[in-house]
Amino acid sequence: MSYQIAVLAGDGIGPEVMAEARKVLVEVEKRFELNIEYSEFDVGGIAIDNHGSPLPAATLKGCEAADAILFGSVGGPKWEHLAPNEQPERGALLPLRGHFDLFCNLRPARLHLGLEHMSPLRSDISARGFDVLCVRELTGGIYFGKPKGRQGEGQDEQAFDTMRYSRREIERIARIAFEAAQGRSKKVTSVDKANVLACSVLWREVVEGVAKDYPDVELEHIYIDNATMQLLRRPNEFDVMLCSNLFGDIISDEIAMLTGSMGLLSSASLNSDGFGMYEPAGGSAPDIAGQGIANPVAQILSAALLLRHSLQLEDAASAIERAVSKALSSGYLTGELIDADKRDQAKTTSEMGDFIANAI
Amino acid sequence: MSYQIAVLAGDGIGPEVMAEARKVLVEVEKRFELNIEYSEFDVGGIAIDNHGSPLPAATLKGCEAADAILFGSVGGPKWEHLAPNEQPERGALLPLRGHFDLFCNLRPARLHLGLEHMSPLRSDISARGFDVLCVRELTGGIYFGKPKGRQGEGQDEQAFDTMRYSRREIERIARIAFEAAQGRSKKVTSVDKANVLACSVLWREVVEGVAKDYPDVELEHIYIDNATMQLLRRPNEFDVMLCSNLFGDIISDEIAMLTGSMGLLSSASLNSDGFGMYEPAGGSAPDIAGQGIANPVAQILSAALLLRHSLQLEDAASAIERAVSKALSSGYLTGELIDADKRDQAKTTSEMGDFIANAI
Ligand SMILES: CC(C)[C@H](C(=O)O)[C@@H](O)C(=O)O
Ligand SMILES: CC(C)[C@H](C(=O)O)[C@@H](O)C(=O)O
Repeated sequence: MSYQIAVLAGDGIGPEVMAEARKVLVEVEKRFELNIEYSEFDVGGIAIDNHGSPLPAATLKGCEAADAILFGSVGGPKWEHLAPNEQPERGALLPLRGHFDLFCNLRPARLHLGLEHMSPLRSDISARGFDVLCVRELTGGIYFGKPKGRQGEGQDEQAFDTMRYSRREIERIARIAFEAAQGRSKKVTSVDKANVLACSVLWREVVEGVAKDYPDVELEHIYIDNATMQLLRRPNEFDVMLCSNLFGDIISDEIAMLTGSMGLLSSASLNSDGFGMYEPAGGSAPDIAGQGIANPVAQILSAALLLRHSLQLEDAASAIERAVSKALSSGYLTGELIDADKRDQAKTTSEMGDFIANAI
Repeated sequence: MSYQIAVLAGDGIGPEVMAEARKVLVEVEKRFELNIEYSEFDVGGIAIDNHGSPLPAATLKGCEAADAILFGSVGGPKWEHLAPNEQPERGALLPLRGHFDLFCNLRPARLHLGLEHMSPLRSDISARGFDVLCVRELTGGIYFGKPKGRQGEGQDEQAFDTMRYSRREIERIARIAFEAAQGRSKKVTSVDKANVLACSVLWREVVEGVAKDYPDVELEHIYIDNATMQLLRRPNEFDVMLCSNLFGDIISDEIAMLTGSMGLLSSASLNSDGFGMYEPAGGSAPDIAGQGIANPVAQILSAALLLRHSLQLEDAASAIERAVSKALSSGYLTGELIDADKRDQAKTTSEMGDFIANAI
C-alpha cells in the first residue's frame, strides 16, 4: 500500500522534533513494508514570513491531496506583535480545523509510570496515577458560531460571540466519547455549564440520549468549574471527558499540565472520513528551539496516532508506541523530565529519535 | 450608627455556619458600639419548599430594604431532579446578581501559613505559597447575553448563547482590578481568549487603556487555557486575576481548590453603590450538614467583607480577620483541615465560632 502524508513542521521546535518522527517512520516503513510519501509545506510563522499568510493556499492544497496531516507546532515571539487573530496559532489551526471539518479532537493524558514526580500534584494524589482521554468537539460552539463581531460606538461599543450547537453536532462527538470509553474504563464524564448555558442544556439532553445506546458505559455530568477542581483532587476517577470546544480547550490543557510531561502528549483531530491532523500537545517552545534538547516523543506519538486513525495501520502504530514505552521505561529521557542533579544523563532530541527508531 | 443586614442562610450547612457568623457579629457590635439589625429570609431549596421559588418576592424585597446581604449557601440532592435552571443555585444566585447589578465579584484565595499541606499541589510548589485575588465580572458576558435559546427541529435543532461585553462593562471591572492590585503586589493578569473570541479582543483593548491610568501596576494578558495550566506550576507568580464572568467562574474555583481549604474562603459581590452580597466560596455541603462539623470560617470572613465593603467598617472587619487568624495559627481547626490521625483534636462548628467570637 502507498500513502501520502502532508508534513507541516511549522515553527520553534517543530522542525527538530519532526525530523525525529520522520526517522521513526522510515523504520516503520521498512518493517511493515509500507510506501509512504511525504510532502512538506510551510505553516504558521514561517509561512507568514515566506508567503504572507499562516496558512498559504499551497499548504491547504497539499493537505487536500494527502491522506493525513502530520503537524509540528506554530508560533513564537517574532509574530506576537500581530493582532491575536492574525497570529500563527489562530491563523493556521482554526482554518485547518474548519476546512477539513475536523470535529473530533482526541487528547489523551496519562501519568507515565516512573514519571509521577513530574506532576504538579501532591505526591499522594499523583501516586494514584491517572489516564484521561479528553474528547473535544472542535468545529462548533463559540469558536465558529455566528454572529461574532462588534457594534455600537464609544463606551456603548459592544463585542459579541455566539455559542451554538445543533443536536447533530453534539451527537456525533458524544458517540465518539462513548465508543472510546468502551475500549477503556467504561466511564464518560460530560463537562458542561447547564446551570447557565442553553447550549449545555441541549448538550446534556443529547448526551443522555446517546448514552442509552451504550448501556455498558457509565455517564456522569459535571459543571466545568467543578471539573476544573475535581481534576486536582481525584484525577484518577476520570476516564473519558466529553467536552464542547471551549471547555475542551481548558480541560485538555489542564490534564496535560497535570501529567507534568507535556512533551510526551500527542493529539488527533479527525473528520468523519478518517482524515485527520496529528500534533503534539505542547507548543512551539521557542525558548528551547534550535538547541537539540526538545522532546520528540509527542511528535513521534502523533505519527503513531496518524497511522492508527487515518491509515488504519494498527500494528505499525502499536510498534511505535511500544518503542516509545521502551525508551521511557529504560530511563531514556530528555532533560525536562530529569531532576536537575541528574541532567548529565539527559538525551538529546536526536538521541531519543535514534533510540526509538532502532527499537521499531 | 445603625445598619440593616439581610440574612439568607439557605440550605445544607448554610444555617449552621450562619449561626456562628451571627455569634461573631454580636461581639463586633458590642466592641465597636454598632447597632446592626438582621432580617432573615428563605432562599434556595428551602425557599422552593416553603414558597415554590428559590428567590421569593419577599426575599428580594427584604434584600432591597437592607444595606447588604449575608448569604449562606444553597442547593442539595433534594432539588437535583429539577431542570438545571430551576435549581436553587442558578435560580437564586443569578437573579440576585442581576437584580442588584452586582457586577464585581471578589474571590480571594491564599495558602494559609501552616496549611500548605492541604493544597493538592506538589509540596515544593505549595511551599512557595500564593495569594491570588480573582476579580470576576459578574453580570455580563455569556451568563446574561441575549439572545439565548433554541431554534429548529429534529437533528437540526440548535441551542445558542451570546457572549456580549461593552466597553463600559469591561472598564468598570478593570478599574476595580487595578485598584485592588495597587493595595497588593501591583500586578494584574487579565485572562481572556483573544485568539478566538471577539469579546476578548475588546476586553484586551479596554484593559490596555485602563492600565495607562495605573502606571505603577504591571499588566499581563494570558489565555484562559494557559492560565488554568500556569496556576498549577507557579501560582505564586499571580496577584490579581481579572476575568470575565465565565472565565472567572473557572479560575476562581481553580484557585479555591488549590488552597485545599475551601472552608476558609469568602467572596464579595458588589454593585457601584457599595451594596453587596457576601458568601462562602464552598457550597452547601449536604454530605456534612447537620453534624456540627462544618467550618464556619468562610461564613465569618464573609461577614468581615460585608463590614468592610458595604458598611465601611474597616476596623470591625479587621478585628474579625485577626480573630480568625488567631484561631488558625493556634491550630484551632475543624476536621477537614486536620490529618486523619489527629482528627480527635478537631473543633466543632460552634467551638470555632465561640473561639473567634471570644477573640474579638
Ligand atoms: C491556538 C488556539 C486557537 C487553540 C484553541 O483554542 O483551540 C489552542 O489553544 C488549542 O487548544 O489547540
Ligand atoms: C451556581 C452558578 C450559576 C454559579 C456561577 O456559575 O456563577 C456558581 O458556580 C458561582 O461561581 O457562583
